[in-house]
Amino acid sequence: ERFAGTHLIIDLMQAEQLDDLAYVEETLRDCVTAAGATLLHIHLHHFTPNGGVSGVAVLAESHISIHTWPECGYAALDVFMCGDARPHEAVEVLRKAFSPERVKVEEHRRGREV
Amino acid sequence: ERFAGTHLIIDLMQAEQLDDLAYVEETLRDCVTAAGATLLHIHLHHFTPNGGVSGVAVLAESHISIHTWPECGYAALDVFMCGDARPHEAVEVLRKAFSPERVKVEEHRRGREV
Repeated sequence: ERFAGTHLIIDLMQAEQLDDLAYVEETLRDCVTAAGATLLHIHLHHFTPNGGVSGVAVLAESHISIHTWPECGYAALDVFMCGDARPHEAVEVLRKAFSPERVKVEEHRRGREV
Repeated sequence: ERFAGTHLIIDLMQAEQLDDLAYVEETLRDCVTAAGATLLHIHLHHFTPNGGVSGVAVLAESHISIHTWPECGYAALDVFMCGDARPHEAVEVLRKAFSPERVKVEEHRRGREV
């Protein structure tokens, strides 16, 4: 099957350390490394007053994004990667980093119709 | 129903002008405006030799991302918005801007489980 890339839609429930900007950035970088991807640009934003973090990592292989709601223990992520990168490895990094009680992963194969 | 945000997974098929970085950036900005969202940060990258563009717009309401494969007329986008923003308005902007012959939109309500 030919497709443009694998897009994982990841939800973390009852997760920890979602309000720590430096920790979130470090974790995104670890995801990139674990997946064997190439980082082109990273940007994070810290929201007040809830401490939520939004971040995106632009990759040679597409992107990773994260949005956190620390007050709910919830984080919404996307891991979209083309080529030989291994996006599922990023899920393991997220499990270790944020200790969620529950993780939901949905996989989309983008561009199958092309 | 309570949920964290609406996430649209958008695929454009047989689309045009997908290799024009400035045009893609202008279109992302138009999407933000049409949706009534607030732009915090925007970053685009131009790939060689195929002219593909990857871009992300970080919003106060989450993010928009785009990855284009001009040689296939294909673009993969995400429009993820929380709060009062109107993500579906962005789809209309994309239709006008890139004249795709076919558009696929899938809607996820992120964070329903929280």
